[in-house]
Amino acid sequence: MRSKFRHVALFGKYHATVTGGALESSRQVLDDVAQFLIRQGCEVVLDKDTALHTGLNLYPTLDMPEIGSQCDLGLVIGGDGTMLGIGRQMARYRLPLIGINQGRLGFITDIPIQSYQDVLQPMLQGRYQTEDRSLLHAQVMRDQHCVFSALAMNDVVVNRGGTSGMLELRISVDGRFVSNQRADGLIIATPTGSTAYSLSAGGPLMHPSIGGWVMAPIAPHTLSNRPIVLPESSEITIEIVSGRYASANFDMQSLADLLIGDQIKVRRSEHTVRFLHPEGWNYFDTLRKKMHWNEGA
Amino acid sequence: MRSKFRHVALFGKYHATVTGGALESSRQVLDDVAQFLIRQGCEVVLDKDTALHTGLNLYPTLDMPEIGSQCDLGLVIGGDGTMLGIGRQMARYRLPLIGINQGRLGFITDIPIQSYQDVLQPMLQGRYQTEDRSLLHAQVMRDQHCVFSALAMNDVVVNRGGTSGMLELRISVDGRFVSNQRADGLIIATPTGSTAYSLSAGGPLMHPSIGGWVMAPIAPHTLSNRPIVLPESSEITIEIVSGRYASANFDMQSLADLLIGDQIKVRRSEHTVRFLHPEGWNYFDTLRKKMHWNEGA
Amino acid sequence: MRSKFRHVALFGKYHATVTGGALESSRQVLDDVAQFLIRQGCEVVLDKDTALHTGLNLYPTLDMPEIGSQCDLGLVIGGDGTMLGIGRQMARYRLPLIGINQGRLGFITDIPIQSYQDVLQPMLQGRYQTEDRSLLHAQVMRDQHCVFSALAMNDVVVNRGGTSGMLELRISVDGRFVSNQRADGLIIATPTGSTAYSLSAGGPLMHPSIGGWVMAPIAPHTLSNRPIVLPESSEITIEIVSGRYASANFDMQSLADLLIGDQIKVRRSEHTVRFLHPEGWNYFDTLRKKMHWNEGA
Amino acid sequence: MRSKFRHVALFGKYHATVTGGALESSRQVLDDVAQFLIRQGCEVVLDKDTALHTGLNLYPTLDMPEIGSQCDLGLVIGGDGTMLGIGRQMARYRLPLIGINQGRLGFITDIPIQSYQDVLQPMLQGRYQTEDRSLLHAQVMRDQHCVFSALAMNDVVVNRGGTSGMLELRISVDGRFVSNQRADGLIIATPTGSTAYSLSAGGPLMHPSIGGWVMAPIAPHTLSNRPIVLPESSEITIEIVSGRYASANFDMQSLADLLIGDQIKVRRSEHTVRFLHPEGWNYFDTLRKKMHWNEGA
Repeated sequence: MRSKFRHVALFGKYHATVTGGALESSRQVLDDVAQFLIRQGCEVVLDKDTALHTGLNLYPTLDMPEIGSQCDLGLVIGGDGTMLGIGRQMARYRLPLIGINQGRLGFITDIPIQSYQDVLQPMLQGRYQTEDRSLLHAQVMRDQHCVFSALAMNDVVVNRGGTSGMLELRISVDGRFVSNQRADGLIIATPTGSTAYSLSAGGPLMHPSIGGWVMAPIAPHTLSNRPIVLPESSEITIEIVSGRYASANFDMQSLADLLIGDQIKVRRSEHTVRFLHPEGWNYFDTLRKKMHWNEGA
Repeated sequence: MRSKFRHVALFGKYHATVTGGALESSRQVLDDVAQFLIRQGCEVVLDKDTALHTGLNLYPTLDMPEIGSQCDLGLVIGGDGTMLGIGRQMARYRLPLIGINQGRLGFITDIPIQSYQDVLQPMLQGRYQTEDRSLLHAQVMRDQHCVFSALAMNDVVVNRGGTSGMLELRISVDGRFVSNQRADGLIIATPTGSTAYSLSAGGPLMHPSIGGWVMAPIAPHTLSNRPIVLPESSEITIEIVSGRYASANFDMQSLADLLIGDQIKVRRSEHTVRFLHPEGWNYFDTLRKKMHWNEGA
Repeated sequence: MRSKFRHVALFGKYHATVTGGALESSRQVLDDVAQFLIRQGCEVVLDKDTALHTGLNLYPTLDMPEIGSQCDLGLVIGGDGTMLGIGRQMARYRLPLIGINQGRLGFITDIPIQSYQDVLQPMLQGRYQTEDRSLLHAQVMRDQHCVFSALAMNDVVVNRGGTSGMLELRISVDGRFVSNQRADGLIIATPTGSTAYSLSAGGPLMHPSIGGWVMAPIAPHTLSNRPIVLPESSEITIEIVSGRYASANFDMQSLADLLIGDQIKVRRSEHTVRFLHPEGWNYFDTLRKKMHWNEGA
Repeated sequence: MRSKFRHVALFGKYHATVTGGALESSRQVLDDVAQFLIRQGCEVVLDKDTALHTGLNLYPTLDMPEIGSQCDLGLVIGGDGTMLGIGRQMARYRLPLIGINQGRLGFITDIPIQSYQDVLQPMLQGRYQTEDRSLLHAQVMRDQHCVFSALAMNDVVVNRGGTSGMLELRISVDGRFVSNQRADGLIIATPTGSTAYSLSAGGPLMHPSIGGWVMAPIAPHTLSNRPIVLPESSEITIEIVSGRYASANFDMQSLADLLIGDQIKVRRSEHTVRFLHPEGWNYFDTLRKKMHWNEGA
């Protein structure tokens, strides 16, 4: 039986930090997976940047927008960070993604490279689960103008400068004043991001199907200033009241410097990212393994 | 202009602990509010238990089911605890509730007794906001039979015995194993309950419109065992694996003793509680005051 | 070279829960260790309760006070719980203790049974480190009389009843009022106990050489009610202001029921427990392993 | 009866941010206090910087080292921040300090300006309590050389850059490896500093007489990476393993940029700061007020 996905795009890690033997091994893995996909009846294209960085030149290449409009499946080989980056860029094209991890198990790259053939075969034939993850859309407003905008799958983070004291932030939700907070910073995380930085700051875990964000202060001055879960329908506005060298980052991958008076507006993106999982996959199995629950203690 | 609510039921605090001068004052307040409602064109009935306890015998009385079927508004004069109790009992009748607090401001009794006339007048004429709060429905299963069931507006709490060590609990969600947890206990809280016991145990605040519960362990043995927000569509099962004298309570108001092997099943109740708020009311104003945010520090 | 310790007492686990094969194996291990000690030139006695429970009848037996007055070393084979119990009872006799764990590494039983011979040999010849741990002495005062007293190596814990609400506790230190606290309970932990229950309640880790206790509330009603480290020279008084079925326990091993008005007075015991560790042992190695730091994540 | 302190130095707030009316009022207060001291038989000198900034030119002025060698009491009028700065600079001269706060009550400026005369009179005549607070001495080591050193009364803080990811830090105590930690940063706080930044990061409160520091990670990646109380006799070494734009600050008042491989060595300073309090003063009263315990909730 042939694959239900005809046009499959392959993405690999292509950070400049992958070099030498790791790069060689990365290229080999991509080639293996490509050959496997062809045997399953897929047409395989390689993400242009992946091809450039790995030097794998045996397959046609497309850039991101071309992949988005021409392919019906994306296969990401890497870690959660790679998956987040591709997910954010492919969201507008609604390209479903499968994540294969090369290192240890990730939260969203849940197929180990060792068993990819056994796991992918039924998935390509249509036996998979879909899961849609919501994204944050953030804008930095200055003098009524948007000076920066970005999507985030994990989180939008407002930070103090490394060498300066606390920020004072004025928080509003849907135009209603919530509080002035003094803290090192503030995290607005999606359920996907609830296992990342927000967790370190004291935020709760959030099941991916929760229609909400967690807003978690970093080292807040006031002890009653606790993480709060807000509905995803709300627009959150964070205004920089005081604090030097403030900045905002989006999935730790893009960055905006902030001035006093700037407002970061965060709302749900109109796009979502679709992940495909093997049948029988469930979120709690992944969570239990990643959190090291039930390993004795 | 006459009240849009014709049949209004009045509820007061009727705990045995209210006696003497407090009881006298409570009776007086109920009488004042009743007279005010009559002047607004309402027919007023008194909750039977409230009448019995306060000795206020100037108004017709009805019991809870009669109120539920015959009235179109309930007015609760008391604190958040009173409101929770009435809310739980009136949920099945869809009776909208307004909360007037006699002491300090509550989370859900948001009209101060001092200004009730000014606030109620426009509300009775239809100028109000509605807010529906979801409830938990919990069942204790023993040998496949339900031996106890209850509703909770705040939380379902599983506790160890006071003189015994940790409980071991096996948690599943929708039939899927989540983890075995050792802790003093476990809280499943609604957004309404997120400002109560769950907060003391490290849980996040949750906006009332979040369609989810927070499951927060109490003094968990494993540090990675963090509060988790679960969708309200899920059925949570907590099985007592080990631990003596375990018990479950529901809004701290009803109680079930638990045996090894018992399962507490928690899901969303089909009922909701409808609160009416003055126009312009907003959740964040209440939260900010109750959490003592922005009072200087 | 012969052992510098002439009279060595052997202690094993003797909880009723150890039966069958585990009991047989426990007896075998004790016998092995005894034979080893004899070969090193020690005279070996067996703790009377250990002998009774394991049925090992090849060695002279002594009860605890006799061991305390006649032996110059105690060897405990078991887990941290066993070590705590023996430590508490031997404290008044200043008997130095060595802990051998049969299961996984403990915080205070730091010699694995697999390598006990190699580790003990140099220790018996005088090459060891000593470490003194302080103990808590607690008294329950009722109507000016002491109705209960106990020592604790880990912690003194005041608990609410399993089925009742929060306790209200009035805390004083050296006769000075600290605060009224509402919580599920309160833990006063030694540095030794700082890795146990106190940690689950949010208390800090404490190096064993810190001359202080941590007082940590369990699920406190007031968020600013944080764990506090108090000097070991202080006398802490906890009065039960309200709450039903309150109780206190001491290392989770002895228990006192408490009434409203009871005062638990906690101060440093005049005794300490001396642990002997292999040369090169250091607290941070144990801590790092037990806390699973640096295992990747 | 004349003051037992002959030579009293007066210090005020002299931050550039104090201007206009506030400056005028500050000058007036200093003048009042000086006149009062003279009436009590003291010789009054003004700190040179205070005189310069406030323009108060009616009294002899001395610089810090002169005050240290010639005066027998320092009176600080300001907030906790001012007191920390003066304390750090006067530590080597063992000048006892009294703190008068002009705004709201501080942790270490415990005499309200409104009642300074009544409180100071008996203190000047010898009826006071002394309290010695320990200080941290920190050195930044680069290629075996000390490139920066500073004292801290509150804390030594290692920070990530505002726009970069987590730091990786290698912690050792007395030359022994503790752990590699990934976090936003790390705080080493004195008991005095335990109510400041460390508290926001989850550290415990510490009574001033505890001979120890708390080491608290800021938003640690690993959840078991909890605050730890270390003995004040220990030397703590923090090495920057990775992370860009790291820096260290000392009481938030001096700052050092850090490079990969730099080591911050922290140990107890040989100096202490002596605070004088009114008779009957006690730490717990201050703590209770500042933490807003027992204000109802």
